[in-house]
Amino acid sequence: MSIWFTEKQTDNFGITAKIKQTFVSERTDFQELQMVETEEWGNMLILDDMVMTTEKDEFVYHEMVAHVPLFTHPNPKNVLVVGGGDGGAIREVLKHQSVERVTLVDIDGKVIEYSKKYLPTIASGYNDKRVEVKVEDGFMYIADSKKAFDVIMVDSTEPVGPAVNLFTKGFYAAIHEALTDDGVFVAQTDNPWFKADLIKQAFHDVQEIFPVTRLYTANIPTYPSGLWTFTMGSKIHDPLKVKEERFFEMETKYFTPEIHFASFVLPKFVKDMTK
Amino acid sequence: MSIWFTEKQTDNFGITAKIKQTFVSERTDFQELQMVETEEWGNMLILDDMVMTTEKDEFVYHEMVAHVPLFTHPNPKNVLVVGGGDGGAIREVLKHQSVERVTLVDIDGKVIEYSKKYLPTIASGYNDKRVEVKVEDGFMYIADSKKAFDVIMVDSTEPVGPAVNLFTKGFYAAIHEALTDDGVFVAQTDNPWFKADLIKQAFHDVQEIFPVTRLYTANIPTYPSGLWTFTMGSKIHDPLKVKEERFFEMETKYFTPEIHFASFVLPKFVKDMTK
Repeated sequence: MSIWFTEKQTDNFGITAKIKQTFVSERTDFQELQMVETEEWGNMLILDDMVMTTEKDEFVYHEMVAHVPLFTHPNPKNVLVVGGGDGGAIREVLKHQSVERVTLVDIDGKVIEYSKKYLPTIASGYNDKRVEVKVEDGFMYIADSKKAFDVIMVDSTEPVGPAVNLFTKGFYAAIHEALTDDGVFVAQTDNPWFKADLIKQAFHDVQEIFPVTRLYTANIPTYPSGLWTFTMGSKIHDPLKVKEERFFEMETKYFTPEIHFASFVLPKFVKDMTK
Repeated sequence: MSIWFTEKQTDNFGITAKIKQTFVSERTDFQELQMVETEEWGNMLILDDMVMTTEKDEFVYHEMVAHVPLFTHPNPKNVLVVGGGDGGAIREVLKHQSVERVTLVDIDGKVIEYSKKYLPTIASGYNDKRVEVKVEDGFMYIADSKKAFDVIMVDSTEPVGPAVNLFTKGFYAAIHEALTDDGVFVAQTDNPWFKADLIKQAFHDVQEIFPVTRLYTANIPTYPSGLWTFTMGSKIHDPLKVKEERFFEMETKYFTPEIHFASFVLPKFVKDMTK
């Protein structure tokens, strides 16, 4: 028997992956959740029919959402991850010795629970004593935080379902308040091939609030178009001016200091979205 | 009725695109050829069940296969494109005023014929008087050429079917002979997610023949993994040392002088393939 999962990334295009077995398929309080084993990508987390992460390619997203803002800040101590219940972002954050505390706020405890069970190499940071987990609404958590975090990462789903409030100017303004005076934030902002309007809107919204606003990209093969964008808002620090001596050796598979800078060099049609 | 074309990019993973109509579906002397209209990508050329090019994303591949080697050479006059029957590469080559002649050698005249008819924006360079078209075996054509070309681009299919000889050390050695004393060549060399061995082999084979060997990448959403590699072999000129004043203004959608350099900055797992 041959079972394939197909994600329609647009109405007319998608990816399809052969499934070995389905571990979980349920409706949580917030979204449809599937945890499956694929032949090509290892175990895969699917939320509302969209691939969230896979064992084989997760390193790209998690390294790039974490290390780019963390190296942009000169000395990050308190870090907040909004969403990111699979644990991959905090695993990367914990590679930074300067970090004293990383708080993860995911609205859906089931994502955390099943990631610990079926994505152990991704969820490997949960037992670290620097990690604090809150199962609650990230939007509300941010609204209650003032000058609390050096770096905030919005590791959300697409702006459908529980994440819809996380792509609004009001949310970016609340993030600005929740950051320390030289804080840095980054959000995943989808892909330029199918979601140009989302990228333009997010970039310009962030630009109205943060003095330094930058877009960067990474190749994530299981995400739509394979080209993913991240939008960074920073109060002071410019990711393009990080000094060579700021970087330190760490085990990565995608990120390097050279990639840090190169990821901000955009293809022309993407660069045009930031104008 | 809903018809979808699915390309199995590996045994266990693929892309799927909704088809509006099929213009051509035939077995040529060399390969299976389909020309279809898709909802998402416009008209699409498929050879041996693999997407070769689409109207919507072709600009990435064609700009990157052409402009990176052409700007690496200080004054390219004679250019050879092996394969590339859709015409996209020569369209980009013709943007360089220094080019006096571009020769296209494709083994399959049907690819040229149907591209002119169904991909007119891609095949737009065929009427230029600097263009010479040869419908013959690129491998043999190269073997008969000595010090004839400043830049050679191998714009081939995957190493199956008619292109199998184009991924061999013997072919790279023949290219070396066919180039002028400061010639530059580039070949598409597939993707690092599913074809790591191919990239390693091609890179090391080229490296044994050319003093300057470099790998660069581009995001092509309809190609496997979305991350495509190109391997460059050069007798003298280093693409990383192109002077700013060498570049000139041209209309592009992907390529910029900044992308020229950034495309050589490789994700760590890709960089490791060149060691």
